[in-house]
Amino acid sequence: MSSSASPFAATLDAVSGRVEPEHPLQERRVSDLEGLYADEAAWRSAVDSGNPLVYTVSAAPVPEEAGEVPFSITSIEPGDVGGELYMTKGHWHTAPEGEVYAGLSGEGGLLLFDGREHRWIELRPGAAGYIPPGWGHRTVNTGSEPFRFLAVYPGAAGHDYETVLRDGMGARVIRTNGGYEVRAREEQA
Amino acid sequence: MSSSASPFAATLDAVSGRVEPEHPLQERRVSDLEGLYADEAAWRSAVDSGNPLVYTVSAAPVPEEAGEVPFSITSIEPGDVGGELYMTKGHWHTAPEGEVYAGLSGEGGLLLFDGREHRWIELRPGAAGYIPPGWGHRTVNTGSEPFRFLAVYPGAAGHDYETVLRDGMGARVIRTNGGYEVRAREEQA
Repeated sequence: MSSSASPFAATLDAVSGRVEPEHPLQERRVSDLEGLYADEAAWRSAVDSGNPLVYTVSAAPVPEEAGEVPFSITSIEPGDVGGELYMTKGHWHTAPEGEVYAGLSGEGGLLLFDGREHRWIELRPGAAGYIPPGWGHRTVNTGSEPFRFLAVYPGAAGHDYETVLRDGMGARVIRTNGGYEVRAREEQA
Repeated sequence: MSSSASPFAATLDAVSGRVEPEHPLQERRVSDLEGLYADEAAWRSAVDSGNPLVYTVSAAPVPEEAGEVPFSITSIEPGDVGGELYMTKGHWHTAPEGEVYAGLSGEGGLLLFDGREHRWIELRPGAAGYIPPGWGHRTVNTGSEPFRFLAVYPGAAGHDYETVLRDGMGARVIRTNGGYEVRAREEQA
C-alpha cells in the first residue's frame, strides 16, 4: 500500500470552484482544445482573439495511485466555438475504472461514448452521473454561468486523451435558439 | 470488465437523504450497533424502549465490483446512547482502497483509525474528508438535525465490520455541555 496519503479535511467551494487544499490549478484555454472542435476556423479565430479560458480543474492532493481516490472540481465557463459549446477535452481511463460526477453549480451535461454509441446525462446541483468502466467522457457547459461539478475516481484510472482526439465522442453539443442540441455523429454534416 | 453498469443519471437529495435510482434502503437501528457503544446498559435500554432508527444508507445501483465506483448517501439521526453520539457501525475496507465523503446537510464528523492512532474530520455542507487506504472509518452526528453525507468508493473495497467490533475505533465521540468531545481510548475509563 506504500506511500498513501494521510487523512485530510477539504473544502469544496461551489461558488469559486476550488478545492482546498489543492494541487496547482489546471487551466485549459481554447488553444488546449486543438483538434476537438468541428469548426477549425472558429477555433483558430478564438485562439487569435484572446485565447479565452474554457475550464479549470481544482484537485485535492490525493496521489493518482491504485487504492487512492482522487477528487476534484471542474469549472467550465459559458461559451462556444463556432456554436459548439465550451467543453472539457474529454478522455478515457487507461484502466477499466469508473467515475462519479456530481453537479455543484450552473447547468451542464456529461457526454459518454463507448466507441459505438453515445449517452447524454444532464448535470446540475443535486444531480449526478455515473461513468462505468469503459466509457469515454466529456463535460459541457449548457448554461449561461460557470458550470461546476465534483469528480471522484479511482487513483489507478489513468487518462487517455488521444482516443478522443482521433475518434471523437460520438456526438457534439451545439447551441440552438434558447437551448442546445446533442447532435449524433451520424447527423453531422 | 464483464457485467459493468450502464451510464445513468441520479439525483442526490440532501433534504431526504435519498439517491434515486437506489438499491433497497438500508436501515440501522440501535440493536444493529450491538457491542459498539461503551455503555451496554444504556444500549440495552434503548433497544427495549423502541429501538430507534440510527442511520440509513441510500445507495445508487452500482455493482460492488472492481472498476465500478459505488456511491451512496448516509443519513445519521441526532441522538446518543448513554452520552455517546449516534454513529455508523464503522468498518475497514477488506482491500487497500480509499474513500471520499462530502457533507450534504447537518453537522457531523468522520472518525478514522489505522489501528494505532485516530483522526477526526468535521463534515458539513461544503466540507469533505479523505479516507486513505488502510484507515478504518466511522461517521458521527454531532448536531441536532439529521447529518447526511455523500460517500464514493471503489467497488473492490469490501467491508470488514469485525475489526471495529473487536478493536474499536481508537476514540469515542461524547456529548458535552453544548457540544461534543472526541475522547481518545487512553482517556476512557
